[in-house]
Amino acid sequence: MIIYLNGDILPQENAQISASDRGLLLGDGIFETLRVYQGRIYRLDDHLDRLMASANTLGIPMPVSRIALCEALDATLEANQLAQSDASMRLTLTRGAGPRGLDLPSDPEPTLLISAAPLDQTLLPPATALISSIRRNQHSPLASIKSLNFLDNILARSEARSQGLDEALMLNTDGQLAEASAANLFIAANDSLLTPTVVDGALPGITRAVIFEISKSQAIPIQERSLSRDELLEADEAFLTNSIIEVRPLIQVEGQIIGHGGIGPLTERIQDAYRRLTAQ
Amino acid sequence: MIIYLNGDILPQENAQISASDRGLLLGDGIFETLRVYQGRIYRLDDHLDRLMASANTLGIPMPVSRIALCEALDATLEANQLAQSDASMRLTLTRGAGPRGLDLPSDPEPTLLISAAPLDQTLLPPATALISSIRRNQHSPLASIKSLNFLDNILARSEARSQGLDEALMLNTDGQLAEASAANLFIAANDSLLTPTVVDGALPGITRAVIFEISKSQAIPIQERSLSRDELLEADEAFLTNSIIEVRPLIQVEGQIIGHGGIGPLTERIQDAYRRLTAQ
Repeated sequence: MIIYLNGDILPQENAQISASDRGLLLGDGIFETLRVYQGRIYRLDDHLDRLMASANTLGIPMPVSRIALCEALDATLEANQLAQSDASMRLTLTRGAGPRGLDLPSDPEPTLLISAAPLDQTLLPPATALISSIRRNQHSPLASIKSLNFLDNILARSEARSQGLDEALMLNTDGQLAEASAANLFIAANDSLLTPTVVDGALPGITRAVIFEISKSQAIPIQERSLSRDELLEADEAFLTNSIIEVRPLIQVEGQIIGHGGIGPLTERIQDAYRRLTAQ
Repeated sequence: MIIYLNGDILPQENAQISASDRGLLLGDGIFETLRVYQGRIYRLDDHLDRLMASANTLGIPMPVSRIALCEALDATLEANQLAQSDASMRLTLTRGAGPRGLDLPSDPEPTLLISAAPLDQTLLPPATALISSIRRNQHSPLASIKSLNFLDNILARSEARSQGLDEALMLNTDGQLAEASAANLFIAANDSLLTPTVVDGALPGITRAVIFEISKSQAIPIQERSLSRDELLEADEAFLTNSIIEVRPLIQVEGQIIGHGGIGPLTERIQDAYRRLTAQ
């Protein structure tokens, strides 16, 4: 794999980060996961908007212009011979090296890192999940930022994997559903779609926003609101979304079958529409 | 500065971490901050106990034995010519490099990093603080682990600094006091010491534990319990503790003076006793 690091295109083994980088020492940074279809980065503008909004919230200066960032992404795809391929990319921005302690460096030199890897188009099978004992802190500004602080989610996912399940759903500290460890959650009930609010701790996912667009264009009622564990278990259908898994049916939670246990009709419509959009 | 990195002693500029280290990409790791008095690491056993307990909770294997870890710490001090000095050290352990995504690598190769820097003995002036709008998630297993997920605390601290204050206190999601952004909190009321419980989100600090020992040996009543914002504002005295700041008086919170606004008698007794212990 070839890596972009602060303006250089390097073999992975030469892409090295300073041991005093605050991204490493304190989780002081953000990232975006991007999906590439035949060499085209899907919803790149939306991802860059979110990245820049998050950088702004954290006070991390963007080390390059938006145009230069797009060029760096393209160069990384090219260097990995993925300029015509399906791929996943990750863009990481940290506050860079700093002195000891939490206080922000007065003159930060951020670290910008881009990686890319081929991804095949195979559709993922329907998912099974548990509801994690780890709660998502909807009171933190990080709840709406894709930050490097992912350890809660790692522990939740690990809990699921150790039980042979695909995913972990996370409640917020009030006991309402927030999201999965690395995906947004939707349920279908009474021919409508429902998804947890950002206020309840849902990450404002790019794919989540696309689902809203699809629902509107297809006249499927859709609503953001607080969702309880019981509403999920009693739902007709459920699915998970992110840029990489796209629209993945969720058919079993806490050992209980959701709806009829197969891919439901609303999920299928959303899946089809999403695939059409990404093929454009 | 000279760094220990996975068995090597290196100049800082050569201490480089893989761009695919999960510590960097996902905050997947832990650390300890150590205080060195005249070349001796204070309460090293307690720090190593906590490190190993945290590594165990997260399922990060220790890459070296406890004895080898102690030797690495000593070698780092020696290489920095701090073997007889006052210093601060940081020991960082990450899960190492891994494939894309949250799932744990099946055969992790952890990254172990140690740094050391001289520290002068100057006593810090009494601190001022605000109460951050950012809540600490006492429901997360991370609340009792010194993990690399420090962005909430960085934002809280930054909020304080931007107002010319020293520290940010954090409430938990139930609105009870948890701790400061990088220190434990104690208050004195009615000749007793009180400190938030670990259940309320206080990190089980090594210095915090020393304060319990001192209180017991000096027959000062001390209690862990839930503490409200109002109890802090109406306290006779307050102080912050960690290995580096030791026992730092807290004399102003949210613009209000705590007690008489100076270093209170109980705080002074604890400070004196702590200094005697560290000088032994």
